Formats: sequence, structure tokens, C-alpha cells
Amino acid sequence: MNGKSILSWQQYEAALDPLTKELSDAARWIQETGQRVVILFEGRDTAGKGGSIDMFARTLNPRQCKVVALSAPSKREQGQWYFQRYTEHFPSKGEITLFDRSWYNRAGVERVMGYCTDDQAEAFLRTTPEFERHLVEDGMLLFKYWLCVDQDKQEQRFANRIDNPRRRWKLSPIDVESRTRYDAYTNAREAMLAATHTEWAPWTLVDFNDQSVGRLTLLRDLLDRLPDTELPPPDIDWPDLTHEPRREKYGVLDPIGNYPVTGG
Amino acid sequence: MNGKSILSWQQYEAALDPLTKELSDAARWIQETGQRVVILFEGRDTAGKGGSIDMFARTLNPRQCKVVALSAPSKREQGQWYFQRYTEHFPSKGEITLFDRSWYNRAGVERVMGYCTDDQAEAFLRTTPEFERHLVEDGMLLFKYWLCVDQDKQEQRFANRIDNPRRRWKLSPIDVESRTRYDAYTNAREAMLAATHTEWAPWTLVDFNDQSVGRLTLLRDLLDRLPDTELPPPDIDWPDLTHEPRREKYGVLDPIGNYPVTGG
Amino acid sequence: MNGKSILSWQQYEAALDPLTKELSDAARWIQETGQRVVILFEGRDTAGKGGSIDMFARTLNPRQCKVVALSAPSKREQGQWYFQRYTEHFPSKGEITLFDRSWYNRAGVERVMGYCTDDQAEAFLRTTPEFERHLVEDGMLLFKYWLCVDQDKQEQRFANRIDNPRRRWKLSPIDVESRTRYDAYTNAREAMLAATHTEWAPWTLVDFNDQSVGRLTLLRDLLDRLPDTELPPPDIDWPDLTHEPRREKYGVLDPIGNYPVTGG
Amino acid sequence: MNGKSILSWQQYEAALDPLTKELSDAARWIQETGQRVVILFEGRDTAGKGGSIDMFARTLNPRQCKVVALSAPSKREQGQWYFQRYTEHFPSKGEITLFDRSWYNRAGVERVMGYCTDDQAEAFLRTTPEFERHLVEDGMLLFKYWLCVDQDKQEQRFANRIDNPRRRWKLSPIDVESRTRYDAYTNAREAMLAATHTEWAPWTLVDFNDQSVGRLTLLRDLLDRLPDTELPPPDIDWPDLTHEPRREKYGVLDPIGNYPVTGG
Repeated sequence: MNGKSILSWQQYEAALDPLTKELSDAARWIQETGQRVVILFEGRDTAGKGGSIDMFARTLNPRQCKVVALSAPSKREQGQWYFQRYTEHFPSKGEITLFDRSWYNRAGVERVMGYCTDDQAEAFLRTTPEFERHLVEDGMLLFKYWLCVDQDKQEQRFANRIDNPRRRWKLSPIDVESRTRYDAYTNAREAMLAATHTEWAPWTLVDFNDQSVGRLTLLRDLLDRLPDTELPPPDIDWPDLTHEPRREKYGVLDPIGNYPVTGG
Repeated sequence: MNGKSILSWQQYEAALDPLTKELSDAARWIQETGQRVVILFEGRDTAGKGGSIDMFARTLNPRQCKVVALSAPSKREQGQWYFQRYTEHFPSKGEITLFDRSWYNRAGVERVMGYCTDDQAEAFLRTTPEFERHLVEDGMLLFKYWLCVDQDKQEQRFANRIDNPRRRWKLSPIDVESRTRYDAYTNAREAMLAATHTEWAPWTLVDFNDQSVGRLTLLRDLLDRLPDTELPPPDIDWPDLTHEPRREKYGVLDPIGNYPVTGG
Repeated sequence: MNGKSILSWQQYEAALDPLTKELSDAARWIQETGQRVVILFEGRDTAGKGGSIDMFARTLNPRQCKVVALSAPSKREQGQWYFQRYTEHFPSKGEITLFDRSWYNRAGVERVMGYCTDDQAEAFLRTTPEFERHLVEDGMLLFKYWLCVDQDKQEQRFANRIDNPRRRWKLSPIDVESRTRYDAYTNAREAMLAATHTEWAPWTLVDFNDQSVGRLTLLRDLLDRLPDTELPPPDIDWPDLTHEPRREKYGVLDPIGNYPVTGG
Repeated sequence: MNGKSILSWQQYEAALDPLTKELSDAARWIQETGQRVVILFEGRDTAGKGGSIDMFARTLNPRQCKVVALSAPSKREQGQWYFQRYTEHFPSKGEITLFDRSWYNRAGVERVMGYCTDDQAEAFLRTTPEFERHLVEDGMLLFKYWLCVDQDKQEQRFANRIDNPRRRWKLSPIDVESRTRYDAYTNAREAMLAATHTEWAPWTLVDFNDQSVGRLTLLRDLLDRLPDTELPPPDIDWPDLTHEPRREKYGVLDPIGNYPVTGG
């Protein structure tokens, strides 16, 4: 997961540890104060969107934090208001929604691969700032992250996916095609940033050439942009058990045998 | 995440590695042959449901594999057909749905905490085997895992959650209450197993007193129960770049500074 | 709407009037006792499904009574559990759902037109009684109506649709094709009735060769099969206005001119 | 349904007839050119929203034209982006959505009855024009109708509902309360019109003191605002039957007896 990071796994975990503690506090603040939080993860293939989302998902309550990774739109969805299939996943109060790619598909893959018309792409760039202002004025906490990766790193990661059967699902025919349109994607991204990096919904670019460092940077940035979220710890009344801990007994069927490992 | 496992993190990762490779193959088989897969994770608080689901989610494509962790039903949902809010998340062909708790809530927490009537619980136990047979005959691959944990381990894990702010969200008031009804939960589970451990939709109990070992055991069991899922690797045509790898340049705004770490 | 009925419009309205009063009472009983009601309308093209549903919809509160008329399934829906796209519209307590065609599509149009395999159609006939028993045991009030029309009447109504631009949307290419497969539909219907006319979820066939009479017959049947649903009328405290009735005044813009009619 | 209209039922039907023909043409144009149409019906209680919607629903294909009549929001919905529960019902290409009350609830009942804060109502009035401009620029055909009724007419209709068991469901406790706040509703409506009657999404006020005339006026207005929607009639190849029309025969069960009517 870390690839060739400057950090060893242990170093990464040690650095991450205090940040996840803060993230837990933030999640509690979001819950108790009824915030609605949306975090978008965008970036080229292999940039590290999935791993960043896992970092959040591992720490947060899955009943509070939803991951939205939409497939290509159905024909009916293609005929709808463009934002519709995204808005139906928006959080309610106290919830966090992580978008693994988002409405910005229209400014990137759809535009470059010709899945939308130029007019549609232009209209998207023109109206999105207003759409997002509407959401932000409505109280949504909206964070937009672009994960940055240079092409040599990307090539290394693609090679790793080709060689590694576990990661090969991450290589789609669109990825293959996208690679040959690298410059078109660059232009599309710059146009997107120029049009949609606004005062009320700014983009944050994070260097993910080292994914471990990138994740720490992203999380630190997010935490710094939330208000002081520390709350007094909840009082939990936790009496001692009044009996010896039970040992489980199963009458209908038994646990299967453990996987044979040797540890220690 | 591992608690006091017999396995070190490195040993766990080393043991997991070949299994995730097989899981990747299985996922590809599920996709290409259009299977619909549902995996239920049930068990007492702290048993290790979330960590098991993360094991899958880390390896699988989020566009193929969805995690469903429902909150308490709304008033409108309470008035619906009981299974309705679960069935709407069922997979389409090629998809995998992981249920972090499931319709079996009615046989466990709802029954023990009095959120349903005894009649409703009885009706649930009577009709669920038939409901599941219907699904299985319709072609669904349904796996039902019960994660086993003894009370002394559970107490240790609760203590760890109380002490660890990052995990304290995992302690809900219902958990506190559930702990005092340990034996009632035992009885409810046994009644559930007696009624719903069927030929067509059997339960599998997995010992999660050591969570790392439990996860390996569960995954090995799942893989063994799928047919031979190996497919020839997909041909990917991957020509060399025709130019030097590009170095990203950002015109609108720059990446923020990296998180200050020292590695190596 | 009445075609060549034995009844004039006035006669029909006069006959319908006391039935709609009973229907209103029934709706209130459904609401106050928290029933969940599903009514299926099936039958050949032109039989009168839409008009029957309008009869209900005109009388009932649209917040209580929903009409479900699904279009052809999307590709993703085709890959799901067959009943899934229907179950998500099931009523909550106090609600009535009217299905304009239903899951029985599989036993009719899908089978005859080859949109499903024979195996799928057979499996549908085998499992549907059990599925419906499950729903009925769960408390759903399920009514299944087949609207009967002879072919000469159907031909007249088709002719009327061809001639009448207002009704031509009711003629789809599938209708044209279905007409040439009249006997195959007959066989499919008989197989469907043989397999799914059960004690717990019986079919009711209603003669719709005269649509006005058919609607009255259907509604009378439904009302007779509900328990005594009369409830004491709700007390409504309705004080006199304390001022002259206001006359509306509009400051921002005025009503548009009325459509020029001459009445009286 | 007509109350004390200047028009008899026959006169109304005769006047409506050519308009529904035009509406059918328009629906076909909407379908074939892939328009997305939203029509809002707003107005005081008893104004005639339901009857107007029925006028559309009776003529249009229920697979093309959906009626959306939302109940009070659930707690989870209350925590969402305000427009979310409305946008999820927006039409896809070729579809028409009729809103029986709409997002304007916030400017009316929610504001007057105190279901939202003044700040929320103000924010709604400020942001809705922009939201609607966004929709209109995205290609949605948006029609906003306010149905006008004077208080003396409203009082007559309320009295009719109290006396008529069939209509008594139309009288909710909120109606009773709303009646005593007539002037507050007037002020709220004027503020709403002042803020949201825009060039791109204008309101149309229609006099519904005579509901039959009101419906004709509304439909005429709508048709006049659509472009020339006439399309050449579709060619339908309709060969003669090659056999005598079949007479239905039922082997499993027979139609029930007809409702005893005497006509002619």
C-alpha cells in the first residue's frame, strides 16, 4: 500500500496515530453538532484516492461515514439533471460522505474521453461554482482534494498493477486509454481548477508522489481546517461484571477450525 | 487492530497475502460470470465485524463491493416489510455486498432489547429460512458468518475502547446495556442458529478470540466454498510511452507543503 | 373513458358514489390501523388497468396512495434479484400501493416476448406463491386483479386508440407484437393462474368487457373483502371565522386571464 | 369535482377535449425530443391542486408522468440538504414530474407554522432563484403555478369537506390551524413571489375560484408556453387479424359476477 515511501510502515503508523485520534474527536464533533461533511477525492489514476479513503474508513464509524464510488451512469441517469445521482448520497446531519471521484468526472474523464459534449463540459464549469456555493451557504462543509502524482510515479504504479494480480482490477480499459491522453487530462485539470477553485469551495492539491506522506498531509490539512473540535470525553458508566466472564458455548453448531498459523 | 494476536503484524500480512490474491481472482470470477454475492457479518459487540469487512474492502474494487451498515430504522421504515430496507441494497450481477449486521438484527438486538415483539421475533425465525431459500434458488451466493468471542476477550476489548479515544465511538449506550444482558443474547443466538442454520443457507461460526487468526480463517473458508475461480489473466496491451514521463505543473494553484516527517 | 358501456356517465357516477364513500372509510381504517395494502392490476392491453387505478387515485389522498408503473428494467436492474425493483415501492403502515402491472410481468410479457428464459419463467411460477405467502404472513393485504377482455372488444379499443391521437401513446410496438401472440398470452395466463392462485393470495378475475361495470365490480369486491372498516367520524373543531372572508390581493403579479368559456 | 362551476360537466369535458389532444401531442414531443419537464402546483388548501394534477394524469402515460406528493420529512431528511428529497424525483429525459406541493413548502407552511426558522426561510428565498436558474440552464422546463382562491370560496369548500366523508381526508389538523393564519399565509406568499418570480422561472397565478375554468386556463397557459410540439403522427402498421377474434376462456378460475347495475 505504501509503495516506495520514505516512511516504513511502522513510521507511517506512528505518525498517523495522533492524527486518527484527532479525526475521532472531529467525528464526534460532527455528530454532536450536526455538521454535514462532504470530502471529494480526485486525481489521476493511481494517485492514491482509494488508500486515502481507507484511511478514513478504518477510523470512522461506518454508520456515520459513507463511501460513494459510483459506476458509470445508467441510460436513465444520463438523462437526469447531471448532479442528481450525486446529491442523493449527500449526508444528513452528523454524517460524512467520502466521494471516490465525484461530479468532477464531467470536467475530467467525461470531457477527455468524449462522454459529454464540449458544451456540457463548459456548462459544468460555469455552473459548478454556483452549485457549490449553494451547498456551502446551506451549511455543508465541503472539502475538495486533488491528489498529485508525476507521470514517472504513475508509470511505476501501473507496472506494479500489471504485475500484481491483486491490483489488476484497478487497471481498466479506460486507464489504458487515459494514459495516452495524459496531456489532455492536464489541460482539463487546469481548466477545472481555473473555473472551480473558489473562495467558498477551494481546491487543495496534495503531493501524492509518496502516498504515505500524501495521506498524512491530507489528513493534517483537513483537521486544521475544522474548528476546534475537542469535546469533553463522554461519561460512560461502566460497572464491573457481577459474575465471572462467560465462556461461549455453542449448542447448534461449533466454530470451524482455525486457519493454521504459527505466530510469536 | 490486531489486539493481542498470536501473530505479529508482519506475520499476519504474510499469511494474508496469498489469500488476498485468491480473493482478487474470486472477485474477477464474480464479475465475469455475473454472480451476486452477499456476505453477512454478525456477532457480539467487539467480535471483529468491522475489521473483517475492512479486510475485504481494502482488496476489492469499491465499485464492485459495497458495505452496508444501516442505522436504526426510521419510523417509516419501521412500518415497512421487515426485509425491505435490506433488499434494496442487494447486489446486481457481478457485485458483492457486505452487510455489517443484517436482517438478523431482529433475532438479536431487537429481540433482546425489546425493539420488536416476541411475535415478530418468532415470525422472523419462522420465515427467514424460506426467504433465504428464495434468494439462494434465485442464484444469490449467500454467506452468513457469526464471529465468536468469549466474554473475557470482549471485556478486554471494551476496556480498550474506553481507554482509546479513537475507538470510543464504537461504544454506544446500547453496548453498555447489551453487556448486562449477555445471557439473553446467548439464548437469542442459539434460537437463531437453531431456526436459521439451513442446508441452503448455513451459518459458519468463526473463532475471533484472536482477530487476526479469525480473519484469516473466515477468508480461507469463503474462498474454499467458491468454485474454482481462477481465470486466465486478462491480456492488457501496454505500450511504452512515446515520450519522457511528464512532470506535473500546476498553473492555478500549487500543492500544499508536505507533512513534516522523517523516514528512512 | 367508458367506451360503449351499458351505463351512461351519469349512471356510472351515481353507482360509483356510494362505493367511493366506502373506499374513503376504508382508507381511513387503513391509516388508523396501520395496514399495508398492495393492489395489483394485471390484464391484457386495453383491459382497463389505467382507468381502474384512476378510480382509486381520484378518491384517495396521494400521500397515502401511490401508483407504481415501472418502465422496462435498466441493465443493472436486470441483474438484480427479480423482485427487488418492486419491493422497494412496497407500502409502509397506513399506505396503499397500486401496481399498474407488477412482478407478474415475468409470467406474461417477459415470457411470451422472450425477455426472460423459460427457466426464469418456471422459477418465477414456482417461487412466487412462497414469496407472496411470506408477504401475507408479514401482514400485507394483497389483492391481485386480472381484468378480463375478449378479443373483439380489445380490437375495438385498439382501433379507438389508433384513431384517437389522445390515446395513441397507449399503443406501443410491444402492443402491436402482442396482438399477434394472443394465444401465447392466453396460455401464459392460464399457467400463471394455475401456479399462483393460492389460498393466501388468490387471483380475482373481473369482466372488463364493459369497463364501467368492471370498475364497479372490482371496487365492490375489494370493499367486501376488507373487514368492517367503519370508524366513528373524526371530530373536527371548526370555529366560525372571526372576520369577513378575505378577498385575495396580489402585489407582485396578478392572475392571468381566464380561459374564455361560456357556461350555464 | 367541479363544485359550483359556471360550466356543466359536459361543457367542461367539451372544452377540455381539444386541450387534452394538444397535451397528448406535447407529451409525445417531450418524449421524442428528450425534454425534462417539472410542473409545480402550489396554492392554499382547497385551491384545486389535486384536481389539476388528475387532469394531467388521466391523459398521460403513467410511465412518462410521475406525481410526487411528499409526506412530512423524516428526521433524517430534515437533516439533509433541503432540496435533496425533491431532486431525487426529478425527471429523466422524456419525463414529466408533477409536484403536488414542492420545495416551496419552506416559504409557506414551514414558515407560517414555525417548522423552520426565520433564517432558514430567508435563506430559502435568497437561494431558490439561483437553484432554479441552475436547473433551467441545465435544460429543465420548469413551470410554477399558484392556484388562486378567495377565502369565501375556500370556506365553502372546507364546509363541503366536513360534510362529505369522501373528502374529509383532505382536512388535516394543519388545515384547521392554517385557516386561522390566513393573513400570515398571504404575507408569506407575497414574500415568496417577490423573491422567486424570476425571468428564468416565473410564477403563473391562475384564478381557481371556479376550478373547472381554472384547470382549463392552466392547461391552455402551459400549452401556449411550449414550442410548437406537433409531430407527424407515428406510422403504425396494423394488419387485420387472420382469424376470428378469440373469446376468452378461463380454465383455472372464472370471472366473478358483475356488479348489478341497470343502464341504458
